[in-house]
Amino acid sequence: MSAAGTARGPLVLIAGAGEYPLRLARILSDQGEAPFIAALEGAADPAAFGDADVRSYRLGQLGSLLGELRRRGVSDIVMLGSLPRPSFGSLRPEASTLQYLPYFARAFRGGDDHLLRGVVRFFEEQGFRVHGPAEIAPELTAPRGPLGRKPATAKQQALLEHGFSLLAALSPFDIGQAAILADHRIIAVEAAEGTDAMIKRVADLVARGRLKIGKGDGVLVKAPKKGQDLRVDMPAIGPDTLRNIAEAGLSGIGLRAGEVLVGDRAALGRQADQLGLFIEGSA
Amino acid sequence: MSAAGTARGPLVLIAGAGEYPLRLARILSDQGEAPFIAALEGAADPAAFGDADVRSYRLGQLGSLLGELRRRGVSDIVMLGSLPRPSFGSLRPEASTLQYLPYFARAFRGGDDHLLRGVVRFFEEQGFRVHGPAEIAPELTAPRGPLGRKPATAKQQALLEHGFSLLAALSPFDIGQAAILADHRIIAVEAAEGTDAMIKRVADLVARGRLKIGKGDGVLVKAPKKGQDLRVDMPAIGPDTLRNIAEAGLSGIGLRAGEVLVGDRAALGRQADQLGLFIEGSA
Repeated sequence: MSAAGTARGPLVLIAGAGEYPLRLARILSDQGEAPFIAALEGAADPAAFGDADVRSYRLGQLGSLLGELRRRGVSDIVMLGSLPRPSFGSLRPEASTLQYLPYFARAFRGGDDHLLRGVVRFFEEQGFRVHGPAEIAPELTAPRGPLGRKPATAKQQALLEHGFSLLAALSPFDIGQAAILADHRIIAVEAAEGTDAMIKRVADLVARGRLKIGKGDGVLVKAPKKGQDLRVDMPAIGPDTLRNIAEAGLSGIGLRAGEVLVGDRAALGRQADQLGLFIEGSA
Repeated sequence: MSAAGTARGPLVLIAGAGEYPLRLARILSDQGEAPFIAALEGAADPAAFGDADVRSYRLGQLGSLLGELRRRGVSDIVMLGSLPRPSFGSLRPEASTLQYLPYFARAFRGGDDHLLRGVVRFFEEQGFRVHGPAEIAPELTAPRGPLGRKPATAKQQALLEHGFSLLAALSPFDIGQAAILADHRIIAVEAAEGTDAMIKRVADLVARGRLKIGKGDGVLVKAPKKGQDLRVDMPAIGPDTLRNIAEAGLSGIGLRAGEVLVGDRAALGRQADQLGLFIEGSA
């Protein structure tokens, strides 16, 4: 990964919603690199990138984007940020994008994984290299060990390991990026609802007296699925995740080091300290 | 199982909440057997058993119950119906039950499985045989094949098999009695929230446009965990389950034949027909 990282040329950051694209732009700019930024309309606000070299594109303007990248001699791509799953009908393709419609049509038939793999394959077939955000800026991901002052206790470690085993067992089924464990057992498994909804469910069970979670008990584990393409689809947590697990009465978060986006490690560590939570990465 | 069934003597039905104990009492009475019924206070209404030989007991009256069973020469037990997890403090043990408090104390430390295993062990140590409801009345469980007129289509069968594989993979983790699948993928996995809450979650995702489930797609699978003691802890579905999955826009239910309680097979089949759902047992 680092070899590919050093070998790359000028970069385009294709930016979706959220803080992560902004943070990656800042990290690159701090390193003296000024990538071209393609802000996806309806997801990323171009103004948020300050005086960076940024333009907005609709999905239907893929032709224009490719033209611009070729004009600039950009052959390396990193994509970051969330994107509401678009409908085929909302593409409104411009003339130069019409030739790519069959790619879109194929990619849109299938799940999210299929769609994302289609996007990577498309750019590769057009002669681009697609890099993962973790390769471009490893500091965006969970490190090994605690992010804040508090490490997981031996008991919490045991829960985390049980949780990572569960996620590994679920991996062949294309689900299981996250789970919540407490009192030596698994109390919630994430599927289509997403991590925040799963945490909220546990908070509700506790609030309605259906579940008791003791102090220092209760952990969230998060890891990518086996075979998940970390170039375009990394699991991520952020300040909201920490707030939500604190509200649910959990004690901390365990993450697969290097494979889960955390954004600002230091800020997240400080927030964890303030909330009395642990947050740490495991190899 | 059937050998043990034929070998047994007079039976006590220890009845918790719900329709299943009533149905089992009726099945036995139709077969000319009149079991003694111990209705657990706060869970089973003794009046609901009509003119059966029934008495109410609090959990704290275990001593009285054992005395009564011995007086009657009853040495075979079947337990059925749900019981809200009692608190140790609410036992209010009578004098003749005090000697059994250490058993209660041990059983109460741990999960539900532990508690139920403790109950079985207790009765066995007191010289009783504990039978599963499926052994006493197999007609309470899902048969092989459809309960209504509609069998699962080949596509639905494929989803069911994928779901049963998932439940088997989850089994070592002491969860995974149920899951919902649609569009070739797993969209919900049950853990501490229970089956009805899981179905409701999928209904909410659909209602909020987060998930689309096509007609004829969307199935619920339900099976016991590996090692689950089917004598005291069988997964169960009923009329509410069918109503809930119809409301969530699912197309049917797959059950492990002989290992999931359905209560009244014929009534459930008729209800499934009315709702346009399939419901069937798989070997």
